[in-house]
Amino acid sequence: MRTVTKDNITDVFKSYMSKDMEPRMREVMGSLVTHLHDFARETNLTHDEWRAGIAFLEGCAAIETEDRHEFILASDVLGLSSLVDMLHSSPTATSSSVLGPFHVSGAPPLPVGGDMKRDFGGPILLAEGVVRDTDGNPISGATIDIWQTAPNGLYASQDDAQDTYSFHGLQTVGDDGRYAFTTVKPVEYTVPTDGPVGDILRACGRHPWRPSHLHYIVEADGFSPLVTEIFPDDDPYLDEDTVFGVRSDLVMSYEERPADAFPDGMVISGKVDEPFLYVKFDVILSRRD
Amino acid sequence: MRTVTKDNITDVFKSYMSKDMEPRMREVMGSLVTHLHDFARETNLTHDEWRAGIAFLEGCAAIETEDRHEFILASDVLGLSSLVDMLHSSPTATSSSVLGPFHVSGAPPLPVGGDMKRDFGGPILLAEGVVRDTDGNPISGATIDIWQTAPNGLYASQDDAQDTYSFHGLQTVGDDGRYAFTTVKPVEYTVPTDGPVGDILRACGRHPWRPSHLHYIVEADGFSPLVTEIFPDDDPYLDEDTVFGVRSDLVMSYEERPADAFPDGMVISGKVDEPFLYVKFDVILSRRD
Ligand SMILES: [Fe+2]
Ligand SMILES: [Fe+2]
Repeated sequence: MRTVTKDNITDVFKSYMSKDMEPRMREVMGSLVTHLHDFARETNLTHDEWRAGIAFLEGCAAIETEDRHEFILASDVLGLSSLVDMLHSSPTATSSSVLGPFHVSGAPPLPVGGDMKRDFGGPILLAEGVVRDTDGNPISGATIDIWQTAPNGLYASQDDAQDTYSFHGLQTVGDDGRYAFTTVKPVEYTVPTDGPVGDILRACGRHPWRPSHLHYIVEADGFSPLVTEIFPDDDPYLDEDTVFGVRSDLVMSYEERPADAFPDGMVISGKVDEPFLYVKFDVILSRRD
Repeated sequence: MRTVTKDNITDVFKSYMSKDMEPRMREVMGSLVTHLHDFARETNLTHDEWRAGIAFLEGCAAIETEDRHEFILASDVLGLSSLVDMLHSSPTATSSSVLGPFHVSGAPPLPVGGDMKRDFGGPILLAEGVVRDTDGNPISGATIDIWQTAPNGLYASQDDAQDTYSFHGLQTVGDDGRYAFTTVKPVEYTVPTDGPVGDILRACGRHPWRPSHLHYIVEADGFSPLVTEIFPDDDPYLDEDTVFGVRSDLVMSYEERPADAFPDGMVISGKVDEPFLYVKFDVILSRRD
């Protein structure tokens, strides 16, 4: 008869997996359970700690809704989401970064040169760049799904004072691959801390802040989609993003420019009578395998 | 500026933990996240696989109720629950085994010699033994919370045909430490497979069966409580309990004895006119630290 012990239980687990199962599932489950068991053995995990872990998962379950994804947030603050991103980033393309929980489908079209700032206060930010392939050629017809916080630090879905697609837009580039839009400078914000993930952050003495950023999802036929973020280089939280999203090639200088340097051809241009911020950020996509 | 990479993210995570945090929390979180990251790196975990993992947790969340503990079931079938048990078993006491999801509080008193079989069919099982300390002395006043399946393989809480405390009883031993009761032989059963844990079992080509067993929780003043199970040595699933609960010292021979060997002093004794099964199982408790 097999005697299960603390030393052989991992092998017993592996022996339970059928020879006929899908090989990748076998590899992933084998590695997952080996690490889970090694974690318990290494820490000599107690029953009370095991119960705390179950209570954490049940606490996440209790607040999980269509708009509140506590398991994803847990993955984000533990660095797993960013690690998976980095494992599959192309070295010759723009780095990917976390999607976060605030993307919404169905953003309205934003023409090249269009405006997302509308009547919101704060400094005008003009963002532009070219979507290119890894040889530097523009990608005609690429789309950029753009979203960000309002000046109050809230995304539209968090804020009754904003309409559904406030600071959300979908831009389609022309043959020159160029995108451009005006907005306000995004601001730093905190991830939600009123759930079990907030308890973990507090227990670890960690803050919940993310550096300010623009979110982009860039897609084009024949290319791998890119989920990324653009950070200003003067943000105080760049070195300590609570979800580990900062990559060096995503940190850009937001230059201050005088009002008379504002380019033609922008929807907002009639209104610009003050200095504005300018960021140029080219996006490089890699071809789909 | 810190550049997070797939190779340094685990160290960055550790650097986020405050110097002032509780040391054991630091140790457990550091080990947990190291293993989580190593798992992702080792398997080169893909976005699709990460999403499948999140969907698994959200699927568990969706069916979690007061009576359905899918996260505990996941821990059980992955061997984590049994591993934690084994890490904290006393080498000189009876082995512990999984609690399982079917324990209920408030079981009615079952006098020494009492009966749980009532009018249920199936062979009579007489279980008896002595609750002892690690020196072999009986422990007066120890309690044994006993529960098991009915002959149909269902616990009372799963079965509308049984009353709440069917096959549940709480026995208090006297100065001689002896417990004894009659019941029916428990039967093997499957863990619930209609949720995400069932999907995992199927994907791994694993069956959901547990060998038949009696559940005991044994408690006495000054001793560590013991959660355990007793298995018959002829069960076909002994070598492949899907929750890894079998320990060699918990496997007992259920001997067949003739009707006239039935002892006096049992509540059921007037009815015994056929061969019965007999199991003797002493329980050894270790003193509380
Ligand atoms: Fe964001
Ligand atoms: Fe059971």
